[in-house]
Amino acid sequence: MSEFRKDPLTGSWVIIASGRAKRPRQFGALKHSSQAEPCPFCAGNETMTPPEVWAKRQNQSGDNGPSWTVRVVPNKYPALAAESEARDSSEQFYQSRRGLGAHEVIIESPKHDVSLARVSASQFVAIVQAYRTRMRALSQDPRWRYALLYKNQGDRAGATLQHIHSQLIALAAAPKAALKELRGARLYYQTTGRCAYCEIIEREVEKRERIIFEHENFVVLCPFAPRFAYETWILPKTHSADFAASAEPGLSDFARALHETITRLDRALGDPPFNYLIHSMPMDEATRHYYHWQLKILPQLSRAAGFEWGTGAHINAVAPEEAARLLRDALL
Amino acid sequence: MSEFRKDPLTGSWVIIASGRAKRPRQFGALKHSSQAEPCPFCAGNETMTPPEVWAKRQNQSGDNGPSWTVRVVPNKYPALAAESEARDSSEQFYQSRRGLGAHEVIIESPKHDVSLARVSASQFVAIVQAYRTRMRALSQDPRWRYALLYKNQGDRAGATLQHIHSQLIALAAAPKAALKELRGARLYYQTTGRCAYCEIIEREVEKRERIIFEHENFVVLCPFAPRFAYETWILPKTHSADFAASAEPGLSDFARALHETITRLDRALGDPPFNYLIHSMPMDEATRHYYHWQLKILPQLSRAAGFEWGTGAHINAVAPEEAARLLRDALL
Repeated sequence: MSEFRKDPLTGSWVIIASGRAKRPRQFGALKHSSQAEPCPFCAGNETMTPPEVWAKRQNQSGDNGPSWTVRVVPNKYPALAAESEARDSSEQFYQSRRGLGAHEVIIESPKHDVSLARVSASQFVAIVQAYRTRMRALSQDPRWRYALLYKNQGDRAGATLQHIHSQLIALAAAPKAALKELRGARLYYQTTGRCAYCEIIEREVEKRERIIFEHENFVVLCPFAPRFAYETWILPKTHSADFAASAEPGLSDFARALHETITRLDRALGDPPFNYLIHSMPMDEATRHYYHWQLKILPQLSRAAGFEWGTGAHINAVAPEEAARLLRDALL
Repeated sequence: MSEFRKDPLTGSWVIIASGRAKRPRQFGALKHSSQAEPCPFCAGNETMTPPEVWAKRQNQSGDNGPSWTVRVVPNKYPALAAESEARDSSEQFYQSRRGLGAHEVIIESPKHDVSLARVSASQFVAIVQAYRTRMRALSQDPRWRYALLYKNQGDRAGATLQHIHSQLIALAAAPKAALKELRGARLYYQTTGRCAYCEIIEREVEKRERIIFEHENFVVLCPFAPRFAYETWILPKTHSADFAASAEPGLSDFARALHETITRLDRALGDPPFNYLIHSMPMDEATRHYYHWQLKILPQLSRAAGFEWGTGAHINAVAPEEAARLLRDALL
C-alpha cells in the first residue's frame, strides 16, 4: 500500500503509507493506562502480532510462546512492505516508486509497565543482541542497501504504544540523511585520510567539555552542533563502521554504555520523551573506511515548529556544554 | 547570545539560543487557561512586550496604546539578534557564526480567547497586511537576505503562548530548506524555461484530484508529495515570486483564501494544531523569474519521530488525494 513520492522541487522523498491510518490511536495521544485494552506486546498476547522472526527465550518453550525476554516481529502496520503489486510510475514530473522495504518491531520486555530506565543490565544486553542480530539478517538480504534501528519513547517522541519497543527498517537505498552524513565523512576522509568521527572523538576526549562519560570501549558525549536539547551520542572508540558486525565483548560494552546513558537522562530530566537511532554503514563496502557507527539519542523536550520546517535548521535552547555538564553530574 | 554552529559531517547549521531557555513554560506544555497569568499579547498589557515596530489602529491613539487590531513587536526571547558582541569563530573543523538576524512577533488579535478560525474576514486582511508590511521592511534592510513568516498554532505545533500570533525571522543568508527549493526551481527553469510552480498549478487545475478550492487569483491544493497529513498550499495563480511586493487587490484575495482554508481545516479536523509558513523569494533578484511564493500549512497530527530524524524522509499516513477530498467537502 505504501508509495514513495518525490517532491518535484526539493527532490525529497516522502512515504505515503495510507495503511498506517488503521494503527491504534492514529492521531490521538498515547494512552498510559495498562488496563484500557490488551497490549499486543505483552507476554501471553503473542497471537496479536504477526509470527516472530527472532526471540530470546530463557527455556526451551516453542516459537511464539510466552517465555521470552526480547521478541522481534514484523510491524503489523508497516510503513513499507517487502512485496508490492504496484509498479514504479514512469511519470517524469511527479515521480513515485513502490514502497518496498522491511519493517520490524523489537519488543524489549515481556512486561507492560517497565520503563527503559528500569530495565536490568542483562536485559539491555539481550536488547542490543536483538538489534545486532536483526540488523545483520537484513544486511544479508540482497534486496536491502540500508537499515535503520530507531526508538520512539513517549507520546511526544511519536510512540503509539507505551510498552517498550524499538523499530527496525530496511530500505532499498540509503535515505537522504544517511547520504548527507556519508558524503561529509567521505569528503573528510579524502581530504585528510582520517575518519571524521575518530577525529571528533579525539578532539572531544582531549577537550572534555562535551564528554558525559567514557567506558573502556565507548565514549558518550553531546555533539558540537546538536539539533535537540540534551542530544547525546554513543560512539565506539575504535574505528568501526558496521554495528551489525559487532561481536563480544564490544556488544556487551555497548549495552552497558547505553544503559548508563539512559539512566543518566532519566535522573537528569525525569523520564524524558526521546528518539534514539543507530546510524550504521549502508551495505556498501566502500564506506567501511570512513563511516563510524553511532547511537544518537534525540530528546524531544521542545518541538520542531514553523521555524524548523521552514528553514531546515533547528533552534536548540540548551548549549551542548551545559547539557554535558548536567548529564555528567546526574549520577553524583 | 545566539550562535550558529555547523555540523562537521552533514554541514547542517543549528542555532544554539541559550537565552530562549528563559521563555515562559520552556519544555512544558501550553497552558490553556487565560486566567493563569497576564498575557503579554493582550490589549492593555502593551508594556509587557518590547515597543511595537508596527500596529494597525482603529483610531488615533498613540503608539503602544491599547486600541490596535494587529500589533508587531520584537520577540522578547529572540532566537537571533541584530547585534552581537561575539565574533565568528576561525576554527575549521567546528565552525560557528554569530547568531545575527531579526525576530518579530505579529500579534493577530487584541483578544486572548480568539482562535484563528473565528477571526473575521476584515481581521484576516489586517493580519496579512502586517505580514506584507514587515516582510517588506525587513527585505529593505541590507543586513538581511532572507525572511520567513511562520505560525505555530497549538501545543503540538510548538506554540508556547495560546494568544494567536505569528513570527517573522530575517536571516543574513537563505537557509538550507530555501536553498534546496530554489535549486530545484532554478534547474527546472533552466531546463524548460518555465516556473515549476506555474507547472504544478497547471497540472493540478487540469487534473483536479488534489485541488481543494480556487478563487480568482489563488489556488489551494494538497501537494503531490506532502510531508504531513493534510498539508495544504496556497499559491497565487499568476507568477509572483515576492510576497512582500503584494499589492491590492491581490493581498485581500490572499486573506480571503487563507481565511477559507483555515475554516475548512477547522471544520474537517476540529481545530488541528498546525504550522504555516510563507516561502517567498530571497533578496536576490535572479530568483524572481523562477521562484513563486506560497503559503504552506503543515498540520501536526502525528509527530516526526525516529524514522524521520534518522532518514530525513517523512511518513505520511494520509494520501493527498484523500486529504483534498475531505477538505473539499468540509463546507458542504
